[in-house]
Amino acid sequence: MITPSVQKTGKLYLVGAGPGDADLLTMQAYRLITTATTVVYDRLVSDEIMALLPVTATKIYVGKAPGKHHMPQEQINELIVDLALKGTDVVRLKGGDPYIFGRGGEEALILTDHNIPIEVVPGITTAQAVSTRLGIPLTHRGLATSVRYITGCCAGELKGDMDWKGLADRDTTLVAYMGLSHAGEIADNLIEQGMPASTPAALIENATRSNEKFVTTTLGKLVQTIQGEGFKPPTIIMIGRVVGLADQLNFRRHLSLEQELAANG
Amino acid sequence: MITPSVQKTGKLYLVGAGPGDADLLTMQAYRLITTATTVVYDRLVSDEIMALLPVTATKIYVGKAPGKHHMPQEQINELIVDLALKGTDVVRLKGGDPYIFGRGGEEALILTDHNIPIEVVPGITTAQAVSTRLGIPLTHRGLATSVRYITGCCAGELKGDMDWKGLADRDTTLVAYMGLSHAGEIADNLIEQGMPASTPAALIENATRSNEKFVTTTLGKLVQTIQGEGFKPPTIIMIGRVVGLADQLNFRRHLSLEQELAANG
Repeated sequence: MITPSVQKTGKLYLVGAGPGDADLLTMQAYRLITTATTVVYDRLVSDEIMALLPVTATKIYVGKAPGKHHMPQEQINELIVDLALKGTDVVRLKGGDPYIFGRGGEEALILTDHNIPIEVVPGITTAQAVSTRLGIPLTHRGLATSVRYITGCCAGELKGDMDWKGLADRDTTLVAYMGLSHAGEIADNLIEQGMPASTPAALIENATRSNEKFVTTTLGKLVQTIQGEGFKPPTIIMIGRVVGLADQLNFRRHLSLEQELAANG
Repeated sequence: MITPSVQKTGKLYLVGAGPGDADLLTMQAYRLITTATTVVYDRLVSDEIMALLPVTATKIYVGKAPGKHHMPQEQINELIVDLALKGTDVVRLKGGDPYIFGRGGEEALILTDHNIPIEVVPGITTAQAVSTRLGIPLTHRGLATSVRYITGCCAGELKGDMDWKGLADRDTTLVAYMGLSHAGEIADNLIEQGMPASTPAALIENATRSNEKFVTTTLGKLVQTIQGEGFKPPTIIMIGRVVGLADQLNFRRHLSLEQELAANG
């Protein structure tokens, strides 16, 4: 009698790689990354984190190469389903947190449709890394009772639907991911809805990486600052009174100023 | 000649301990916790994480004991400033992320006022842990383009100021921290502002801990569910269409159901 071979389904680990600094990985993410056999990864996963993978691991890139189109989401879905159905355990590595603007939910739905076991591991999202490192508490007594993450990339599409009045809340810290190309629209609408043009705002390109760029400005001067300083994606925009605390709380800047003074002195 | 002794100031590490599971600590937090000499910690830091501290570490509790008042914030501020000025490096351990409803900004301001060097380490906030573990993506194409964290503990105080219309946004996932005693007010106001009573909602007590309790309900039945199921703090409330995805994405529940069936079968 021939026993039909039963293929054991692989497990998919949907893992948040955080903003870039390997020190901000969770313990669970670190363990999964350093013992992975097959990894499917995005553009926003940093070189520092990729270097933690075993040299023997199969690394499959599904991000966007400069000037090229990235792999369509449907093709990524097919790829990870195929790998798992063939019995491969897969670490699906995404920048930030897979369930905050990571389209992780879409991948998870496809996987569970195929009865593929999944485990989702959260990651420090860029807003948190920027907040703690650059001295901008996301909430703060008297300045912000709430924090809200929006994605700027879709502001254009959603313009008719965007509740700008609700977004223009002075007591909420607003963080726009992928918002660079819609910064003008965001600023204009918020100001139109009563948010003061003098509201502090911050721009952070390549947060936590060696090429990190950080500038504070105001809502009214947001676009001018982006153009003047030549900000490029990936850049995160933070808007709210808490940004004003960075002058005192950005200890890293104090340190680099001291180093600069010492070097010049 | 007598040289005056110069006391070197200690450094203060303001560290997010996450929701409770030590596996969700960041690498940096883990390193700081496992090598700490002096720790000042809150009630919401889990036993599992406290067990990682060196046995020789001095542990100072500043949280609220059952039935007693917790140490006032001013006294905590004084304590950490004193320790640092005496030259002690301090790990100030807080549940979640120190800059999301953690009053970390207030402590950081006092410390920098005294020129005490600080470093702030982010933590996985409860919303993220709940989201990834229980299958509720915080954003999801077609269901939520934005996520917003509010604190329920102050809803009473702020009632006059709360922008309920802005909060009642169907395209935003709303997460209320410490919202249990104000759940009725939150639900009533959101429904009054047009959010459907049928909007899915979830309640999670003691997220990621061994005594975690998780129930899904609707906005209209929120208070009834809290009372019926006997929810107690710390409980987080999630409101939004993404909560409906948990039926399919909560792989842990599927697992426990299977285990239950196997055990009973």
